Amino acid sequence: SIDGQRLWDTLMAMAEIGPTENGGSCRLALTPEDAAGRRRLLDWCEAIGCTWRVDRVGNLFIRRAGKRDDLDPVATGSHLDTQPKGGRFDGILGVLAGLEVFRSLHDQGIVTERPLELVVWTNEEGSRFAPAMVASGTYAGEFSVDDTLSRQDADGVTLGEALDACGYAGDMPVGEPRLDGFFELHIEQGPVLEEQGECIGVVTGVQGMRWFDVTLAGQSAHAGPTPMRLRHDALAAAARLIDRLQAHALADASGDTKVTCGCLDIPAASRNVIPGEVRLTVDLRHVVETELDALQALFERELAAAGETFGVAVSQQRIWTSPVVEFAPACIAAVEAATRAQGVPYRRMMSGAGHDAVYVSRVAPTSMIFIPCRDGISHNEAEYATPEHCALGAQVLCDAMLMRANS
Amino acid sequence: SIDGQRLWDTLMAMAEIGPTENGGSCRLALTPEDAAGRRRLLDWCEAIGCTWRVDRVGNLFIRRAGKRDDLDPVATGSHLDTQPKGGRFDGILGVLAGLEVFRSLHDQGIVTERPLELVVWTNEEGSRFAPAMVASGTYAGEFSVDDTLSRQDADGVTLGEALDACGYAGDMPVGEPRLDGFFELHIEQGPVLEEQGECIGVVTGVQGMRWFDVTLAGQSAHAGPTPMRLRHDALAAAARLIDRLQAHALADASGDTKVTCGCLDIPAASRNVIPGEVRLTVDLRHVVETELDALQALFERELAAAGETFGVAVSQQRIWTSPVVEFAPACIAAVEAATRAQGVPYRRMMSGAGHDAVYVSRVAPTSMIFIPCRDGISHNEAEYATPEHCALGAQVLCDAMLMRANS
Ligand SMILES: NC(=O)NCCC(=O)O
Ligand SMILES: NC(=O)NCCC(=O)O
Repeated sequence: SIDGQRLWDTLMAMAEIGPTENGGSCRLALTPEDAAGRRRLLDWCEAIGCTWRVDRVGNLFIRRAGKRDDLDPVATGSHLDTQPKGGRFDGILGVLAGLEVFRSLHDQGIVTERPLELVVWTNEEGSRFAPAMVASGTYAGEFSVDDTLSRQDADGVTLGEALDACGYAGDMPVGEPRLDGFFELHIEQGPVLEEQGECIGVVTGVQGMRWFDVTLAGQSAHAGPTPMRLRHDALAAAARLIDRLQAHALADASGDTKVTCGCLDIPAASRNVIPGEVRLTVDLRHVVETELDALQALFERELAAAGETFGVAVSQQRIWTSPVVEFAPACIAAVEAATRAQGVPYRRMMSGAGHDAVYVSRVAPTSMIFIPCRDGISHNEAEYATPEHCALGAQVLCDAMLMRANS
Repeated sequence: SIDGQRLWDTLMAMAEIGPTENGGSCRLALTPEDAAGRRRLLDWCEAIGCTWRVDRVGNLFIRRAGKRDDLDPVATGSHLDTQPKGGRFDGILGVLAGLEVFRSLHDQGIVTERPLELVVWTNEEGSRFAPAMVASGTYAGEFSVDDTLSRQDADGVTLGEALDACGYAGDMPVGEPRLDGFFELHIEQGPVLEEQGECIGVVTGVQGMRWFDVTLAGQSAHAGPTPMRLRHDALAAAARLIDRLQAHALADASGDTKVTCGCLDIPAASRNVIPGEVRLTVDLRHVVETELDALQALFERELAAAGETFGVAVSQQRIWTSPVVEFAPACIAAVEAATRAQGVPYRRMMSGAGHDAVYVSRVAPTSMIFIPCRDGISHNEAEYATPEHCALGAQVLCDAMLMRANS
């Protein structure tokens, strides 16, 4: 069984690299901090006899040999990069729990049939280089290597240049090695497990996500002398749209419909000028693809109606689509069996957030394990998971990997 | 009668000072451009024998002598400063129409009983120094001279320093001279006259205005895993408020209720983060003070209800109040008589925007004259009024001033 205290100490040691003021972490992808985090991980892994390779987009593959090294490995992993004011668990837990699995097997002299692989995916957060999960997406064939290497950060530095500069540009072809299976442990990033008093989420898939950029173009005019009935108020139309989308999502008793407008900008805003233009982002999610289609259709109707009502020209562009993911039944079953063996309350659930496992699941049987995080908060320095939940998640991960690697 | 062509040529000559790319003007208050505009005006006025003085906040008083210079003058005027991308008419028309009145009287050798005064009020736009109409407000006793002189622009330059630098710091006490009456000609800045095919607005007063800063504080969280029913979405609450206020204002068949939310900010916005905080401005206007009270009460109720519905803490602060202004019946009657004499379609109307006349009306009998502006657009390089309407407005101004100055 794994060593929960060692895992916790390792999490806290990683958090010493790129610490933030309020107890969080800042290790943006492919910065010196990210490189230092990778180096520390590799030191720990080399100390227990692991070998490693890097592919052309910087994904790290750390191997623990099996009895049958000709077979595809059973893999785990996540990411070490963080948001600018990120926490100590999002991604990091999934990587360091993999290390803890390796250490425990090492201590107990256990060698699995299949080799094991611990993967660190580059730039999961999408905070330095857009989009999120870009390197696991490249591994799975969603993005081309050249496109990924040429993506730029806010300063115009390409991902390829940053890889070279931080010393993690590898030469292994992207897409290698093939994996027999992939398990990712992650904090839930939502409040459901905590609220329900459950310790583990057996993740059966990931909800579908669609991102839209919306523009509402009215006519700016003076707030004082312009009669209400002659206005073309872009903010009024945006507010109507947001209010209708909220009402629709809240009315879904299943709770499966999710709508978020995260950004709203009024160019050249002034308090006594009717907003002539609004730019809005819309994030639609649902666990059922056909329901997501219906949600998108509703969004398009409500947008058109809001534009009509307020005399505002509307347009929208779908800029990202992630279809509903159903994880592999065999991997889900392994996670569920490992969870049951712990005798803790758990639930089967869909992930609300995107993770590297989304893309990996296209090319290898995959599942995920969630543990609760305090108040459901993540992408925040206050992000927290208890040592007990971290240990429990690592144990479930260990047992699920062993089941698959030895079967 | 006045010379419409000369007035138009003078407007276009003033627009040569601080021209913008798209045919507008940029003469921010107390900049070298503003000073150059003032200087050009003074040259024109000196050429027809006028004298002038400047008060301590830079208001320019240009006098045309009357038969009875012991009597208080009948005044007109407006402002020469513009928005950063302002037009050629907003304020400027009111000043240069006053000049055209003086020139016409000069040409015809007419001397009025009372002296006439042409006033250029400093910093009406509020674009460089907040608030708007600050120097006419100081003249009327709303703001103290010291407060006004110490107001800073975005670079930390005080209004007093800017006055010194541009050479228009005068020593006349603020509040002098007392005025027998004040008439301000201005473009409507709204679409009503144009839409109704009317040429003149006889302005009977100015609607009341109240400005609010609103803060909605929820809880930011991840857009994916956070259930709708557990959210504290500050933008959803703001959208509900905006939608309810719009519905209320649009339902007022009289058209007298006006609600504008001009600015909406989401600090640290991100497309997959539920907005944790929203800052919103609200501008409420009504022509009846008790109705404005009721409108404010409704706003407060709707804000509280939106906060309640979405689990968001709300607060608001009233940062500016301008009560309903009723202009002096005698001045309104003079403008209406002068308008009737022209035989053009006109309407009696309230001003939707604040003007220097708002503050001047507290210390002298006042009224205003509006002319249509194209599409109701102002604070915009595209602002336009026809030469015919400018001439008509100047003629009405001239006749109203003569009525008062000779009675
Ligand atoms: N885990 C995570 O934040 N992924 C980014 C994509 C998403 O918004 O779900
Ligand atoms: N005329 C003008 O823009 N005044 C500023 C105050 C207002 O918003 O009405």
